[in-house]
Amino acid sequence: MGQSDAEPIRGPGRRPGAPDTRGAILAAARTAFAERGFERTTMRGVATAAGVTPGLVHHFFGGKDDLFVEALGVPFDPRQVLGSAVDGPIDGLGDRIALAVLRTWDDEQRRQPLLAFLRTAMTSDQVAALLRGGMPALALGVLGDLVPGPDPEQRVELAFAQMLGVAVLRYVVRLEPLASLPADELAGRLGPVLQHHLRG
Amino acid sequence: MGQSDAEPIRGPGRRPGAPDTRGAILAAARTAFAERGFERTTMRGVATAAGVTPGLVHHFFGGKDDLFVEALGVPFDPRQVLGSAVDGPIDGLGDRIALAVLRTWDDEQRRQPLLAFLRTAMTSDQVAALLRGGMPALALGVLGDLVPGPDPEQRVELAFAQMLGVAVLRYVVRLEPLASLPADELAGRLGPVLQHHLRG
Repeated sequence: MGQSDAEPIRGPGRRPGAPDTRGAILAAARTAFAERGFERTTMRGVATAAGVTPGLVHHFFGGKDDLFVEALGVPFDPRQVLGSAVDGPIDGLGDRIALAVLRTWDDEQRRQPLLAFLRTAMTSDQVAALLRGGMPALALGVLGDLVPGPDPEQRVELAFAQMLGVAVLRYVVRLEPLASLPADELAGRLGPVLQHHLRG
Repeated sequence: MGQSDAEPIRGPGRRPGAPDTRGAILAAARTAFAERGFERTTMRGVATAAGVTPGLVHHFFGGKDDLFVEALGVPFDPRQVLGSAVDGPIDGLGDRIALAVLRTWDDEQRRQPLLAFLRTAMTSDQVAALLRGGMPALALGVLGDLVPGPDPEQRVELAFAQMLGVAVLRYVVRLEPLASLPADELAGRLGPVLQHHLRG
């Protein structure tokens, strides 16, 4: 959980006295990532659009991928979830990713905001554009050389699709037996498929 | 496309003069499948709830799985899509299912109502309950012995999850490169995974 603010405009800013500035930067960042994608969005461009200095954007948000995670507004840092699964033998990568994702969803405090995010992404062009703009870059930033070429984005997206579909059926539709399977058993079924997508 | 009515209550019934009766039966069927699931729903129970004779339900809708497909309100018969993929060598089953599903989604006339259905399923408890009640039975009715035990429902659901996630990323989020891949190329990536889930 930790640092992220799901509703940064209404909630208190992390730096006292500056919630409006944070909100303006996040709004500018959402527009930039959605319109230009991750690679072509710059901290300087976001700063200009928000009417602040680039230094202030760095001061509030750190790097560009930190800014993207804050702009997404999910209730945890997806880099941490994925990053926790990267350590270990390469053969078990798929299993560890599946288990880390399922544990995140199985945690009730994170599930509700995740469900809200998922429903919004299905109906909001801006949220879809934000995901489109930055998701593959964010995942590849963590997975890096673990996902071989020539098309690592495609590999990551096929694996993401498997987990996304499982999340919809397990947590939204609540289809049995998928909804009641213990996370480690389900991860055992999904691991080889993620491994195939990412590395096969 | 063919026979199904996406909006059976407002549209004309398939039998002239009886649109309200059809609508009443469909409403009763949706409630029954959602509350009781496919196995425990009976044509007789639906007829009683709709205030008509069981014969009339059969006359309008044929069998119980026909009634379920009409109740779902999707713009095509999922049994036909899946059924078209069943014929052929068992080794290519996953590839054929992936291609049949992608071609259905790639067809613009079917994509729009499918997207509407998907968004509704994400937010409507009744539509989610309807899917939950009948989807595995419907798929297994077509796939039958092609999916081995001990838990064929789980196999079908994991394969369904893969295709559902791909549909969300390709058609809703429109994530590249997934959104622009030719259907046959994408089917070539998904086929082995569906084969693994269904048969592996």
